[in-house]
Amino acid sequence: MRLARIAHPSGGVAFASIEGEGDDAQVLEIAEHPFGQPNFTGKRWPLADVRLLAPILPSKVIAVGRNYAKHAAEFGNEVPAAPMLFIKPSTTVIGPKVPIRRPRDVGRIDFEGELAIVIGQPVKNVSADRAASAILGYTVANDVSARELQKSDGQWGRAKGFDTFCPLGPWIETSIDPSDLALRSEVNGDVKQDGRTSDLVHKVPELVEFISGVMTLLPGDIILTGTPEGVGPIVDGESVSITIEGIGTLTNPVQDI
Amino acid sequence: MRLARIAHPSGGVAFASIEGEGDDAQVLEIAEHPFGQPNFTGKRWPLADVRLLAPILPSKVIAVGRNYAKHAAEFGNEVPAAPMLFIKPSTTVIGPKVPIRRPRDVGRIDFEGELAIVIGQPVKNVSADRAASAILGYTVANDVSARELQKSDGQWGRAKGFDTFCPLGPWIETSIDPSDLALRSEVNGDVKQDGRTSDLVHKVPELVEFISGVMTLLPGDIILTGTPEGVGPIVDGESVSITIEGIGTLTNPVQDI
Repeated sequence: MRLARIAHPSGGVAFASIEGEGDDAQVLEIAEHPFGQPNFTGKRWPLADVRLLAPILPSKVIAVGRNYAKHAAEFGNEVPAAPMLFIKPSTTVIGPKVPIRRPRDVGRIDFEGELAIVIGQPVKNVSADRAASAILGYTVANDVSARELQKSDGQWGRAKGFDTFCPLGPWIETSIDPSDLALRSEVNGDVKQDGRTSDLVHKVPELVEFISGVMTLLPGDIILTGTPEGVGPIVDGESVSITIEGIGTLTNPVQDI
Repeated sequence: MRLARIAHPSGGVAFASIEGEGDDAQVLEIAEHPFGQPNFTGKRWPLADVRLLAPILPSKVIAVGRNYAKHAAEFGNEVPAAPMLFIKPSTTVIGPKVPIRRPRDVGRIDFEGELAIVIGQPVKNVSADRAASAILGYTVANDVSARELQKSDGQWGRAKGFDTFCPLGPWIETSIDPSDLALRSEVNGDVKQDGRTSDLVHKVPELVEFISGVMTLLPGDIILTGTPEGVGPIVDGESVSITIEGIGTLTNPVQDI
């Protein structure tokens, strides 16, 4: 199932599922939340008539640094033995088509295309072999990063914490095997990242076990699994699109503020 | 005003204000939330009859590293030119008297007594001279830290992100000048930290300006302003108390898990 959050034609906001492809795609309104077995209201619209929002508003976004060997190497870093965790504030989250706003005077801003895990139920200390039961599905994320601030600050709370620095979407795919998906990032149509999730150093089940061993994961929480090589700068007026096979494409324009 | 969150004798949970001192202190139930001008239900109890909870459940906890010169020096670090930000997951928050649970096999766990700013309204890009209008009040925090993981991981998402690693309380004091308050931490009654908030490198108004220039602050969000020198380990069976002048004392036992 494809789960989305939408602004529908009359202006209301709701969770929804998406059925069908292309021009025939329809959006079916969910009465409450998308966890467990959703209830449908019976209202539906063509996908083209609704606006897709960030598919979930997470209580926390946990990100994993340097989780693809070739990306670690492109900045001269080793792959850490244990997953390297940092937290992005939930105020970074935006949806498809919403501009990434580049702050002034902080130097280079990079896109980072990532597979995002969406948690489906409260869990602590879940084992890797039961991790799937904790997962609602997967979406596409852009872990936008102020590259020079990462170095000068040391801790990444600022560099990765500006408003709009976590585009998510276009929806959550609940029925997909995340272990070997193509991930492609394009800036203005030029391919910049062309990786596969099979190159993740710490895989999805291992990440859920590791992180839930540290902190309780709540429904809607997001785990950003890391980015493959090929990250690079984005500037005012450009458009960045990240596509993950079997999920979809997340596109955001870039605007200076 | 002293704002608390309580479990009252009949088992319900509510925000409340506390009036009076010592044995005469009374708890007045607030109808909804403590922001703006709270409405009171008319119910009241002796303070001794209620259980104090974490005074707020924040959407995010933003922490400032190395913001007292002598604390930076005790680990051989410089004071950073710009405030060094990191985020603690909201699942770290616990209230007074709740045990800090020490995870196994991660080495030394330290207390860090800190003045915590509680945000009172949504703000972005607020200037230092208007920062007070964004602040609901101040509480006491313990930025519990797995010291060895901080070094081995590099990013502090894990070291400072375990469940129970952000005790907050005992309440929020709304009428206090934070610029020169004594801050004292004790482990089993032995004084370990004895600092003053006047030694903060980046002061409260500057921190609110700086952080709100990066991210939107929401009502209830917490800013941990940094810890003075004297941090140290806590082990199973000990009790750590942090007292800030004019606010109160936050006490938590320590338990191995």
